[in-house]
Amino acid sequence: MKIAVLMHFDAPSREKLEKALPGCEIVYAFDRSLSYLDREEFDREKYAKELLDADAAVGNPPPDLLPSMKKLGLLQLFSAGTEPYSLPGVLPEGAKLANTSGAFGKAISEHMLAAMLTLSKKLHLYRDDMREGLWLDRGSVTSPEGMTVLSVGMGDIGSRFLKLTKLLGARTVGIRKHSLTAPDWVDEVHLAEDLDSLLPSADVVALSVPGNAETRGLFDERRLRLMKKGAILLNVGRGSAVDSLALCRVLSEGYLAGAALDVTDPEPLPPEHPLWKCENALITPHVSGFYHLRETYDNIVAIAIENLVRFRDGKPLLTPVDPATGYRETQVWPKA
Amino acid sequence: MKIAVLMHFDAPSREKLEKALPGCEIVYAFDRSLSYLDREEFDREKYAKELLDADAAVGNPPPDLLPSMKKLGLLQLFSAGTEPYSLPGVLPEGAKLANTSGAFGKAISEHMLAAMLTLSKKLHLYRDDMREGLWLDRGSVTSPEGMTVLSVGMGDIGSRFLKLTKLLGARTVGIRKHSLTAPDWVDEVHLAEDLDSLLPSADVVALSVPGNAETRGLFDERRLRLMKKGAILLNVGRGSAVDSLALCRVLSEGYLAGAALDVTDPEPLPPEHPLWKCENALITPHVSGFYHLRETYDNIVAIAIENLVRFRDGKPLLTPVDPATGYRETQVWPKA
Repeated sequence: MKIAVLMHFDAPSREKLEKALPGCEIVYAFDRSLSYLDREEFDREKYAKELLDADAAVGNPPPDLLPSMKKLGLLQLFSAGTEPYSLPGVLPEGAKLANTSGAFGKAISEHMLAAMLTLSKKLHLYRDDMREGLWLDRGSVTSPEGMTVLSVGMGDIGSRFLKLTKLLGARTVGIRKHSLTAPDWVDEVHLAEDLDSLLPSADVVALSVPGNAETRGLFDERRLRLMKKGAILLNVGRGSAVDSLALCRVLSEGYLAGAALDVTDPEPLPPEHPLWKCENALITPHVSGFYHLRETYDNIVAIAIENLVRFRDGKPLLTPVDPATGYRETQVWPKA
Repeated sequence: MKIAVLMHFDAPSREKLEKALPGCEIVYAFDRSLSYLDREEFDREKYAKELLDADAAVGNPPPDLLPSMKKLGLLQLFSAGTEPYSLPGVLPEGAKLANTSGAFGKAISEHMLAAMLTLSKKLHLYRDDMREGLWLDRGSVTSPEGMTVLSVGMGDIGSRFLKLTKLLGARTVGIRKHSLTAPDWVDEVHLAEDLDSLLPSADVVALSVPGNAETRGLFDERRLRLMKKGAILLNVGRGSAVDSLALCRVLSEGYLAGAALDVTDPEPLPPEHPLWKCENALITPHVSGFYHLRETYDNIVAIAIENLVRFRDGKPLLTPVDPATGYRETQVWPKA
């Protein structure tokens, strides 16, 4: 079995991989001297030939390389998000797809909590005032205690975020599509059909849904205006779930108190996009996950190695992706 | 008994006060139509005469008015901080002093958590980048899980802050001067003499000590450099506890990852002060307490009414202040 490693694997990770899969041919497309925080692409000229006969690949390669990988049986992504790989015709026929669902939950849910509290306590406005040397009282703030927090999406990220807010005294409400089961820190679970009726009572609405045809434009102007006046919106799933220009309007009017966006539409957000100038938007450049907590990187390496072993042994994968939904097969958000 | 109310009392608060103290003469120096969030002073020309024979006053009046209040038996502040009223000779002889210790704990501890997470997740830098329309990865972040958080000061504010960080997975260490007792969410309690030996192992150091001769300059350059490289400093007590210019140097070198200051020295911080330009300082203009959570205001009104009733009845006050230390008499930070 030949494995192409198309993401940074540092020395300890290589050792674990080689120990778990003895006898496999392993090609590393990144120099081990690079930091795992580097975002650069691998040298495709140098490695394209090596990929032709790989049985498995780890990483998120340029999609146009995939058709030439005729032997590919498994593409193990380093991301939780699965597009464009889950789109029809992108993967070679017969290849399985796995993501790293679960690896990012801690990092992203903490980022969400930080962003929610920043907006609640107006720290973004005080930061702006610092630039002007301005000692100015920005008025009342809100507390997580007693807030209603609605998580749209109840995977690892959404569930963990509700746990953090519950610890700080919030009332937690989750929306999921396939069942009404939830961890015990979730006060209420609803199906997606209840979304519109739940929006008016939520102080914080947090989106952690994947990008697909169904979630595109989920928060259009109508839904943004169904939210409670003064509420906060968080989006960490895919930028396409929120209509950026409608959000600008709703924020500029002061209808919503704030929106923290770690994902945008488009992405990267172009320098001239009006969202940048929205005082109550808090934009981060898709950084809440990645490997910004070392633990995330370690999780990803562990999931990748486990899936490679299972693939070699012909066993079910730990985090298989259903190409039809872009979700883990075990956590499906089915069509309404 | 005549009571001068020198802070905003809204209609419900007046009703409670008048019900608790029937038959008292009550003078309100603020118009009820003002918002409790207004910061303006009362009209001293109009009310100075009324104060001359007041038995009790609620609020933080200009200190130069106090010598004329010959009958004053109780000054009930609306603040937890007690200077300048606790300085020798400021209060008329025989007058007792009470603060509102306990009223601010929730608001201030939540602000501290928000500021700590903002710095940990680099949201202050991403906010700066927004101004430039800059989509830029700022690198690794830290998690509260597993962090060591050291609270210098274990009153209501410091204790509550440790509780919030404990809920998010931190190891909590408290420093108090008069005893080694602490709530069960505090992993370790030490006496002040251990401060220097504890600094090198703390990821976050949070100061909530009052302003007095003993705390002035507590965090000078030597102590700032005893902190762990990459640690975060929070100050919500009094600005004088930290040497502002030394902090600027230590932050600018990148020795500390960040400092969140809700109090500064001097205060207000003048527009030309170098702290404003410190990228990893997060300055808020002494707003973490005040009445920015409505609940704080309600707490203050409740404490004030309770102390007025106790004063009338000749009973011990709920929150008496020892003028020698500026602390609640029951929570003393004694001389070393």
